[in-house]
Amino acid sequence: MPRVQIIEMSLRDGLQNEVTHLSVGQRFSLIKKLNDAGIRRMEIGAFVSPTWVPQMSESGKLIKKVLRAQKMRRLHKETHFSALVPNRKGLETALESGIKEIAVFGAASETFSQRNINCSISQSLKKFEEVIKEARANKIKVRGYLSTVFGCPYEGAVSQAKVIKLVEKYLAMGVYEISLGDTIGVATPKQVREILNKVLKMSNSSKIAMHFHDTRGTAIANILASLDLGIRKFDTSLGGLGGCPYAPGAAGNVATEDVVYMLHGMGYTTGLDLQKLIKTTQWMSRQVGRQLPSKLSLTGG
Amino acid sequence: MPRVQIIEMSLRDGLQNEVTHLSVGQRFSLIKKLNDAGIRRMEIGAFVSPTWVPQMSESGKLIKKVLRAQKMRRLHKETHFSALVPNRKGLETALESGIKEIAVFGAASETFSQRNINCSISQSLKKFEEVIKEARANKIKVRGYLSTVFGCPYEGAVSQAKVIKLVEKYLAMGVYEISLGDTIGVATPKQVREILNKVLKMSNSSKIAMHFHDTRGTAIANILASLDLGIRKFDTSLGGLGGCPYAPGAAGNVATEDVVYMLHGMGYTTGLDLQKLIKTTQWMSRQVGRQLPSKLSLTGG
Repeated sequence: MPRVQIIEMSLRDGLQNEVTHLSVGQRFSLIKKLNDAGIRRMEIGAFVSPTWVPQMSESGKLIKKVLRAQKMRRLHKETHFSALVPNRKGLETALESGIKEIAVFGAASETFSQRNINCSISQSLKKFEEVIKEARANKIKVRGYLSTVFGCPYEGAVSQAKVIKLVEKYLAMGVYEISLGDTIGVATPKQVREILNKVLKMSNSSKIAMHFHDTRGTAIANILASLDLGIRKFDTSLGGLGGCPYAPGAAGNVATEDVVYMLHGMGYTTGLDLQKLIKTTQWMSRQVGRQLPSKLSLTGG
Repeated sequence: MPRVQIIEMSLRDGLQNEVTHLSVGQRFSLIKKLNDAGIRRMEIGAFVSPTWVPQMSESGKLIKKVLRAQKMRRLHKETHFSALVPNRKGLETALESGIKEIAVFGAASETFSQRNINCSISQSLKKFEEVIKEARANKIKVRGYLSTVFGCPYEGAVSQAKVIKLVEKYLAMGVYEISLGDTIGVATPKQVREILNKVLKMSNSSKIAMHFHDTRGTAIANILASLDLGIRKFDTSLGGLGGCPYAPGAAGNVATEDVVYMLHGMGYTTGLDLQKLIKTTQWMSRQVGRQLPSKLSLTGG
């Protein structure tokens, strides 16, 4: 059976958009529960200013705790952790934490790039090039996020040609994988097929992950469209937690358990335990003090 | 551009599962708003016992009011209204109301048939045959619902061969269209493709409608799978209102506006005004006293 990889976003893209800030202890508990449900890839922090994103504060402390627990075999040895790194300063702290994978985050829309990461697209590429070079010299794997691929909250439509060019540049800079983000959840399957058909002409599908937000209810259909074209890596967030704090009206990532339900029903394997995921969502709902939007968790499993 | 037909379910499959009972006046207002948003097919009542389904009481009164309003051009002359009819007694009341289309409702699972309509599948077919014959003699069009096509809350899996045989029987009895229902929202696109590939071997796609509930978040992906196979008719419910009162844990039909958003984004035409649909959902949320689950309505349009 074909295998699909779930890259769990709740601890970064999820939590950074929650009003409730989780302590290092709570975040660690979530990591442990996700690990025990079979999650083998998760982004668990960001080395950004705590002034801008207080939810990600003490990411270094959390990562050290996680890596220690993994050494003591409290976490599976094959579980991979990553953290978002915006610049060289962030990379220094990341290196100090001992993490083995980082991610850089750019945009396909000029205005979104300016407002979200305070620089133009071309300036962001220069920064990433430096970070990637130094990271790889330190044997750190780098993942790339390209956001606003399907639309921008400020500019509206985004040029597909521009997206393709940027994917090419990210890959050329040495990211081992690029995650194409529908940051504001506007994509429909037609657009997904158009972009992926172009992207897959220049890249193997193993280097491409899709990252859908479910703002308008189309995320799961977009995942189906991607699966049909051979994509086997998806960024999802437990319970549908989170979103993007800089994109007006943006909802959370598509819910991990809803995606996994569909995947298992279609004969894909994920290595994940649905019942444990649902229980973790119920636990998570209590931590953030609101019912999370995943559908499956409402059925009680 | 290919055209897709939306058959609006909120007034029947939707309301029958709401705790709040809407008056004839409120239901008429909803019909008027849906009509003004471009909806041209809606099921607006059921001739069932008010003891069992009090939400559908005074369906006859509502239908008379609607047909009167249509005569006075307050409703579009091309808007088609239908009502659920369980038996000959129901048909008599339906005929008396002046409605020009009715629907019969059966199941593909024996236990669900017993518990939902109090008879075996073969008994239900006999009843439908009588109803359809008499309806057609009175120039009334008949739609058929086949429920639990993708799974049953009591029996679990449902035989695909049985489903295919039943579709054949319904069509042979003279329904002009059959709606295949995922009553408890368990279907995934693989199953949808399997069943539709078989169904479309014996029937033109114009006779097939798909009816998905979004219990596990897969409804919109199932619609995409159906669209890809040429299906152009979908039962949806404004705001995602409703469900099935006899199926434990069942959520509402997939939300009309979320489906329409995807359809328009993919280049399909529906004749519907998304902004008006969203406003109607916001109005509807106030009537039933809860936030309806559609995603698009939360964005504010």
